[in-house]
Amino acid sequence: MIKLLLIIAFDGTNYSGWQTQQNAVTVQQHIDASLRKLFKGVDRVYGSSRTDSGVHALAMAAHVEIPEEEFRMSPSKLRLALNTFLPADIRVMDIEQVSPRFHAQYDAKGKQYRYQIWNHRAMNPLFLNKAWHVPQILDRSAMRRACRYFLGTKDFKSFAAHHTYEIESTIRTVSVCRIKTGSSLISIIIEGDGFLYKMCRGMVGTLIQVGQGKYAPEDIEEMFNKRDRRCAGMSAPAEGLYLWKVFY
Amino acid sequence: MIKLLLIIAFDGTNYSGWQTQQNAVTVQQHIDASLRKLFKGVDRVYGSSRTDSGVHALAMAAHVEIPEEEFRMSPSKLRLALNTFLPADIRVMDIEQVSPRFHAQYDAKGKQYRYQIWNHRAMNPLFLNKAWHVPQILDRSAMRRACRYFLGTKDFKSFAAHHTYEIESTIRTVSVCRIKTGSSLISIIIEGDGFLYKMCRGMVGTLIQVGQGKYAPEDIEEMFNKRDRRCAGMSAPAEGLYLWKVFY
Repeated sequence: MIKLLLIIAFDGTNYSGWQTQQNAVTVQQHIDASLRKLFKGVDRVYGSSRTDSGVHALAMAAHVEIPEEEFRMSPSKLRLALNTFLPADIRVMDIEQVSPRFHAQYDAKGKQYRYQIWNHRAMNPLFLNKAWHVPQILDRSAMRRACRYFLGTKDFKSFAAHHTYEIESTIRTVSVCRIKTGSSLISIIIEGDGFLYKMCRGMVGTLIQVGQGKYAPEDIEEMFNKRDRRCAGMSAPAEGLYLWKVFY
Repeated sequence: MIKLLLIIAFDGTNYSGWQTQQNAVTVQQHIDASLRKLFKGVDRVYGSSRTDSGVHALAMAAHVEIPEEEFRMSPSKLRLALNTFLPADIRVMDIEQVSPRFHAQYDAKGKQYRYQIWNHRAMNPLFLNKAWHVPQILDRSAMRRACRYFLGTKDFKSFAAHHTYEIESTIRTVSVCRIKTGSSLISIIIEGDGFLYKMCRGMVGTLIQVGQGKYAPEDIEEMFNKRDRRCAGMSAPAEGLYLWKVFY
């Protein structure tokens, strides 16, 4: 078997997330269907991450195995061929051959997510489904101070959806949490070794509520201590979130 | 009559441009229809510029007259009301009252357009209909040198659609023409006192062909001298173009 790593970008607006489900259209289903048009012996791709309905990706990583006897084209030709089958809101950006032991999920050393907020009294129609519209004036310097509380190796239970990870560890390491601001566009960049379900969205929702004055930056320390989702801020909507990069 | 200046943003993908036409859906029609829902005595808005089908705007300017006896709300309330009637891909970003002599088109002192190019082997689905996909590697420093040839007060006839402006002057002043590059995203910023029909797209198409090595930067001087559309480069597609700002 030849093992390939695919880097995939998609606009998540019209998909029920990445992972194949029954009775819903997902990105993975489209990738699998396109691969099966070219190779009989392909099972499916294995993604680095699940993404929720409406979440976007600039560089989702996924591996796939293709029988050696069927693989007769270069990775770059395969990329072009797959893109002719895929809908325009999903694109394979890059393909490279990897070791047979490579695994897109288990070998990921870290991930970067970005979250876009349109912070102006009226929504920018050019960011429709691509950013969260927050019309109120935000205390951006309080938000910056709040970012620091997320850094380090901590128990993120209060920021992740509580119905999952009941048996797994909820400890993760966040190495980057910073805010880039334009006049109306705010980007939050979050990098870590791994992310719990809806953890990024819980962090962003809390940061926005700090910007709105509902919480003080230092309240985040107490939120961590409580280990209870109800003690942290709201969850930011999916449409502003982008899986930006996966590190191997 | 009360005269108002509206600043309007729109995603041009689904519209046949700004200006009202028969048998086509335009942005102006939506704005006019929304105003007429609120005021009986409104005729129509007057835009600062026409934009072509598929072209976007972050800050189209338009004025409208409303009978004084009908105008009973603040501009900011009117903005909210209009946005509830408008489709999500059109938004009134700001409204202010202006002098009765103000005219959105004739009083415009200048405009800024921006053009987005996605320069990577695969198109970014997050920029679908929002940027021109140019897959080839471009000589960005040649493009930068080429920008200078567009600066100043010149006859732009070679860069504009030739079927219009047959009787008008084709002399315009371009004060800014510069390129901002990210790794895959290229933005071209063009500012001037006025623009001929399709002039920005002719300039951008020519700059890209300089980047592809089809023309040398200094060829642009000869293109200006020829005063013939066929002697300049191609016209860039509408989807990458944004009316960014109108100066008064």
